[in-house]
Amino acid sequence: MDPAFFSWAEPVPGPTTDALACLAAQFHLVVVGSVFEQVDVGFCFNTAVVIEADGTLLGKSRKMHIPQYPHYDEKFYFTPGDTDYPVFDTSLARIAVATCWDQWFSEVPRIARLKGAELIVYPTAIALEGEIDRTVKDAWRTCMCGHAVANTMYVAAVNRVGREESMEFWGGSFVADPLGQVIRKGTSQEEVVTAQLSGPRLEETRILNKFLRDRRPETYGALLKRSP
Amino acid sequence: MDPAFFSWAEPVPGPTTDALACLAAQFHLVVVGSVFEQVDVGFCFNTAVVIEADGTLLGKSRKMHIPQYPHYDEKFYFTPGDTDYPVFDTSLARIAVATCWDQWFSEVPRIARLKGAELIVYPTAIALEGEIDRTVKDAWRTCMCGHAVANTMYVAAVNRVGREESMEFWGGSFVADPLGQVIRKGTSQEEVVTAQLSGPRLEETRILNKFLRDRRPETYGALLKRSP
Repeated sequence: MDPAFFSWAEPVPGPTTDALACLAAQFHLVVVGSVFEQVDVGFCFNTAVVIEADGTLLGKSRKMHIPQYPHYDEKFYFTPGDTDYPVFDTSLARIAVATCWDQWFSEVPRIARLKGAELIVYPTAIALEGEIDRTVKDAWRTCMCGHAVANTMYVAAVNRVGREESMEFWGGSFVADPLGQVIRKGTSQEEVVTAQLSGPRLEETRILNKFLRDRRPETYGALLKRSP
Repeated sequence: MDPAFFSWAEPVPGPTTDALACLAAQFHLVVVGSVFEQVDVGFCFNTAVVIEADGTLLGKSRKMHIPQYPHYDEKFYFTPGDTDYPVFDTSLARIAVATCWDQWFSEVPRIARLKGAELIVYPTAIALEGEIDRTVKDAWRTCMCGHAVANTMYVAAVNRVGREESMEFWGGSFVADPLGQVIRKGTSQEEVVTAQLSGPRLEETRILNKFLRDRRPETYGALLKRSP
């Protein structure tokens, strides 16, 4: 926990967003990027920005769930987000964006799905100290593949690679289809992982798995409580 | 859809519950069983009963989410349940029980977890017509393994085996641990699948994955709506 790191925070839009917008326009790519967003001195969010392929900033999604873990002093740096799980109509798909720890919370993709998201993108920086326990890595993937199935949506998890002091960021970025099958998977090295998503396949699977039709929202009140 | 099948419905407690209670006491087993429960003529639920190892009926959990699918005319036979996702303190563990189609809904294990469930048991009868698509079978398992991870709980799925007319019930009952690892898995044949669950392992994983600490229930209002 080092107060000096707050000097890295910046507004949105700001220098990082501007740089990403230039690259988006140059390469004609929809871009999701992460920014340490400052709203006021010491009042910061872990924010993902979504930029259209022409360089337009479509909006931002602030990380909603903030962990506090050995080597992850996030509750010191980040304010819990207030952006209400936005979805973005991009030229490629209607996408939701949630950041890192958000990925473990089944409420997030469910709300995104209700808002019409076809794909949820998770920028993430997950690491373990020393040797990586395969079961933890599996759990990370299983949880998000479960979200894909339960919400009949595509999931893209983009994870950091490399080492920082004792922490090994395991990479393994992947894209899962709406039945939770991993259709593309990265390694632990820096690389570009591409996957082709299919609108007709998504639609076909949603007609097969009509989960939203049978929800019982009038019985879900307990979800709005912190404890029973 | 055959009205004649309603003659198979029975009250709870009733003959099936009584028979299961006798067996529970005889073999000293906690039993979860399924009953076509009649409350009034034509007013029926798909109900799971939970019986303590001494034969005591602890309670029931009525199926909350009712599908309507080719060969599954459930909306004709069953009323959507009203038992509010109960958990049962048995001599083995605190368990939640949800039936079949309920297994696809992330709201169910989340509410169960908030109520303290250590294990969720899903009696289920899932089949496909003709050859079984492996990706659908995988999705079924992935979704429930995802629930195990997202809620740091054990999951036991008990699926029917065998053929009925054109339908092949694929079995594959399994138990997943709180990191979503399948620790025991059945075949497509009738059999007894046993697994050892560990309280200390559950506790250790819950201390690692402190998801409930970081939930944002004040932001989950959309979950109580049917549509956005």
